[in-house]
Amino acid sequence: MRSKISNTIKFLSADMIQKANSGHPGTPMGLSDVMSVLMSKIRHNPKNPKWLNRDRIVFSGGHASALVYSYLYLSGYDLDLDDLKNFRQLHSKTPGHPEITTDGVEIATGPLGQGVANAVGFAMAAKYAANLLNEENNEIIDHKIYCLCGDGDLEEGISYEACALAGRHNLDNLVIIYDSNKITIDGSTDIAWDEDVKVRFEAQGFEVARIDGHNFDQIEFVLDETKNKEKPYLIIANTTIGKGALELEGSHKTHGAPLGEDLIKRAKAELKFDPDKTFVVDEDVLFETRSAVEKGDLEEKLWNEKVAKLSDEKKNLLNSLLNPDFSKVAFPDFSGQKVATRDSNGKILNAIAASVPSFLGGSADLAASNKTELKDMGDFPNGKNLHFGIREHAMAAINNAIARYGLFVPFSATFFIFSDYLKCGARLAALMNLRHYFIFTHDSIGVGEDGPTHEPIEQLATFRSMPNFYTFRPADGNENVECWKEALNLGSPCAFVCSRQGLECLPKAVFGSVKGGAYLVKERENAKITLVASGSEVSLCLKAADILQSEDIEANVVSAPCFELLCKQEKSYLDRVFNKNTKVLAVEAASGLEWYKFADEVLGMKSFGESGNANELFKLFGFSDVNVAKIAKELLNS
Amino acid sequence: MRSKISNTIKFLSADMIQKANSGHPGTPMGLSDVMSVLMSKIRHNPKNPKWLNRDRIVFSGGHASALVYSYLYLSGYDLDLDDLKNFRQLHSKTPGHPEITTDGVEIATGPLGQGVANAVGFAMAAKYAANLLNEENNEIIDHKIYCLCGDGDLEEGISYEACALAGRHNLDNLVIIYDSNKITIDGSTDIAWDEDVKVRFEAQGFEVARIDGHNFDQIEFVLDETKNKEKPYLIIANTTIGKGALELEGSHKTHGAPLGEDLIKRAKAELKFDPDKTFVVDEDVLFETRSAVEKGDLEEKLWNEKVAKLSDEKKNLLNSLLNPDFSKVAFPDFSGQKVATRDSNGKILNAIAASVPSFLGGSADLAASNKTELKDMGDFPNGKNLHFGIREHAMAAINNAIARYGLFVPFSATFFIFSDYLKCGARLAALMNLRHYFIFTHDSIGVGEDGPTHEPIEQLATFRSMPNFYTFRPADGNENVECWKEALNLGSPCAFVCSRQGLECLPKAVFGSVKGGAYLVKERENAKITLVASGSEVSLCLKAADILQSEDIEANVVSAPCFELLCKQEKSYLDRVFNKNTKVLAVEAASGLEWYKFADEVLGMKSFGESGNANELFKLFGFSDVNVAKIAKELLNS
Repeated sequence: MRSKISNTIKFLSADMIQKANSGHPGTPMGLSDVMSVLMSKIRHNPKNPKWLNRDRIVFSGGHASALVYSYLYLSGYDLDLDDLKNFRQLHSKTPGHPEITTDGVEIATGPLGQGVANAVGFAMAAKYAANLLNEENNEIIDHKIYCLCGDGDLEEGISYEACALAGRHNLDNLVIIYDSNKITIDGSTDIAWDEDVKVRFEAQGFEVARIDGHNFDQIEFVLDETKNKEKPYLIIANTTIGKGALELEGSHKTHGAPLGEDLIKRAKAELKFDPDKTFVVDEDVLFETRSAVEKGDLEEKLWNEKVAKLSDEKKNLLNSLLNPDFSKVAFPDFSGQKVATRDSNGKILNAIAASVPSFLGGSADLAASNKTELKDMGDFPNGKNLHFGIREHAMAAINNAIARYGLFVPFSATFFIFSDYLKCGARLAALMNLRHYFIFTHDSIGVGEDGPTHEPIEQLATFRSMPNFYTFRPADGNENVECWKEALNLGSPCAFVCSRQGLECLPKAVFGSVKGGAYLVKERENAKITLVASGSEVSLCLKAADILQSEDIEANVVSAPCFELLCKQEKSYLDRVFNKNTKVLAVEAASGLEWYKFADEVLGMKSFGESGNANELFKLFGFSDVNVAKIAKELLNS
Repeated sequence: MRSKISNTIKFLSADMIQKANSGHPGTPMGLSDVMSVLMSKIRHNPKNPKWLNRDRIVFSGGHASALVYSYLYLSGYDLDLDDLKNFRQLHSKTPGHPEITTDGVEIATGPLGQGVANAVGFAMAAKYAANLLNEENNEIIDHKIYCLCGDGDLEEGISYEACALAGRHNLDNLVIIYDSNKITIDGSTDIAWDEDVKVRFEAQGFEVARIDGHNFDQIEFVLDETKNKEKPYLIIANTTIGKGALELEGSHKTHGAPLGEDLIKRAKAELKFDPDKTFVVDEDVLFETRSAVEKGDLEEKLWNEKVAKLSDEKKNLLNSLLNPDFSKVAFPDFSGQKVATRDSNGKILNAIAASVPSFLGGSADLAASNKTELKDMGDFPNGKNLHFGIREHAMAAINNAIARYGLFVPFSATFFIFSDYLKCGARLAALMNLRHYFIFTHDSIGVGEDGPTHEPIEQLATFRSMPNFYTFRPADGNENVECWKEALNLGSPCAFVCSRQGLECLPKAVFGSVKGGAYLVKERENAKITLVASGSEVSLCLKAADILQSEDIEANVVSAPCFELLCKQEKSYLDRVFNKNTKVLAVEAASGLEWYKFADEVLGMKSFGESGNANELFKLFGFSDVNVAKIAKELLNS
């Protein structure tokens, strides 16, 4: 039966890809033997894909999506054969790479390596959840995380980063199954890779087994073995890409293109499937695989009984983790205080974490600089402070999974310049609409002496251009608080771009608020010019407005902590913020191109920064009150 | 004497940082013992920092810049004590992180991990150069590459990626010295790392030695050992961070802040230095270390004699590698051909590589999709095709070093979406103004079925916002050729953002050219609207203009292959391209925010893409001729 289930997966996958005339048959066919056993071993409830104590399967090689959909369909998730026939079609439940809009897909994968780090993130979330919630003789969190990955995932740097952390924390709930087929798109892996993967993982603290990925007994044996390990476990499954695809077996040609109808027919005949039929799932196969539904229902019932036996304290904790309530946070008040926004932000993080059990996070080895230490709240796995090491990329992907786990709201922190290293993780957070916050301190040439390698220029434009992501750059401590309130309200991923240096307090809003993305902090009758800025440049604009006023030129000043929110406002709001009778000058110590959407002129950074005293740098690049006033006058005279 | 040299380095570094009141003393003091021996072992010519056969030292931990400047000063490079006293000051030769504007700095480092990959790149360049240029009994390329790195570098994923390649290619000219001080910013490394680094590097094909990094005999012995290895070599030097800093020895507090005058005085007294003097270099120290100048001069003279003995063929080859001549490239002609620009670009790459010996490159395992195979030109280390494996980040950093080596002009290729993984490498190419080309294919929702994880949206904005970088998105084959001519002319890093799908041929330019970044391909008398686009959207705009014309609305159409070049044009050029009597509508299947600089309205992507047929996606997101015409009319009526 296993063999028949495996072959059913092979041909469902091949048929999907052939019908779509697009896709990747090699991996689904190479992994179908492993998958047919794995699906019999996992604990999940296809009718409730959100059941908290389910085992998670992460398919890191998202291009093997036909394998994912075959598995989900056979297990009884909310997919039918028509969905499989719509593979890779617009608005189908079966897109080219798995997306979380499909029931049973734990996390969106596609860019290689992400899934391995996501799996580590799920394992970390489960480990912490177990420490929080389990009671003696009543372990309500005891599930496993399985990750299927390939050569590409393990060549990517992010996989080493994440697995180093998995080893450090002895994540014994993590099982990585490495589909070692020795084939990449350009040919044999050995054109670029001859690493000893077993030794590599042992160096990182894993226990490693090597099996024939087409031998059912070995697969079963090794999966049973994973139950009682004290370390994370790597299974190296030696497989043949495109297994069952006759003359194309083992060829990189099976990786990314349909096999062709003729070959599929001959392959089916060879394995005793009807060559003239497509999308065939025999009753006996379905009877066997769909037993997952009944089994899952029972598992969840038993689990609910365990939850019912929890102490009230644990029950309340579980409830508050499932339903984070941000309404009771006692936000600090920074009125009258000149603070660096990294400092105010650190206090806000502590206030949220103190009141919301779900809220946790950490930095890529810059906690003291990012001001992200959650004081007296302990370290993972027994507390809320996550130490990611110097691994920005893994941090983002791990926290994506922690956000997706179901109990936690994480933040990731580093210098803004190193957002370059984690960009793809932030993008996937946006694509999945995860509640994952990014703390980016040292936000501009204000970094000063560390120089241009450490001074962000184009990073604001990058994040502002990314869909479904909100980039807050607060101008003082209280605006920082308001930004957090709005961010928590949005529920989407957000970044907080904070200064290293102290920032003056803004005057009260004259019109609008942070909710509008930008608002007037100074409004004058007969204003001729509007100065708009974010972060450290807002107080600069207020000073420039004073200079202009002394020369009888009235200026409005707009603080714009969130460009993306501003873009969402109605015309009436925009027309009030940017008075039509004024010319608009945007001032930002960044590339600033996006400001042309609202501004007639932009004073931004046209080059990389320099190493030197921060105040000198601001002056050098034109960010002085005198120069802002001068450019404003030039704009008025142009 | 070694001890005195080492202590001189310690206190020069401590003094620099104290005077600047900013910097990182821990690593310079911890590594001064290693450095004092290493500097006596290397072959270089301080008076000619460009000598081709010099050993390269890469300081991957760029924050240890005080160590770099101490070494350069003591060796006789173009730095004097006043330069050291100006450490981290604006426009000094001694910026916070090393930059290539300082003689003797091989490559700019700062973001951790980059330098390790740079070192692998230098080693690859040297290996290939040796294969090209050396003759029997006359090896003109036989130098070493030394890389000093720390815990942070080795935690970053890019270091694993690069070292996997170093092992695969048995780069026996590479010596990595790992400053293992067990300290990171957040405290002891073991809060996030307990990897067995020796085993890890052995798994990747390195030979590994472990030494006491404060024992001069061991340091000398192991450096002498490196001479005759058949594998890349890792030296794990166990060190104490801040060695010599008394009570702060071994503390993470020495990492990123000055030690304080009092402590420095006491430390000097302890090591028999005058506590009241700063920036002291005794004559005997200088006599010893500056012998590098005479030695280097002699080494270079001997080398010149070897070069003189080369065959004419090799001499000519060396000359053409040193002076790449792009003027004789036989560019292909794509007139009348509907081609995907990834295809035209592939032909152009082959034409350049066939005619210019310096020109080489490769892909991160997507050569067939990126169309970057250089046909019949062999594989590294015996040919021009570099196979980077699935390692975008290492690829960019390796090619930065290959570009910086002095003989080669490399390209890096991947899907545009995976530019997210290599962003920091591209940024450093821009910062150093390296001739390094990036080939980014599959440029938009035109990717189609692979879906939103694979469809770039914000990537054009990212690169366009980055200083000193040129992003070309050609609209047809011949424009692709013109873009390359301009790119080769610029000499700065450039990206070519190419389509997966075939693109129609454009009409001839009416006014302007690729040199201007944008030019008119259609100009009508009494035009009311200008449609501006890049890449696949240019022909769409031409069709929309026809629709508008059929409704008696005249439209100009602008093809804009390079936004950055357009930004550099004078007003007269811009006024001709964007006729003042027209409204301007920009059309681009990307976020497109930057187009507001020139446009009144932008039709761009406001969300992530979808998985489906590419043509359907273009329509879904409004990129149809009918919709462009409709939006143009709305703009005219607004």
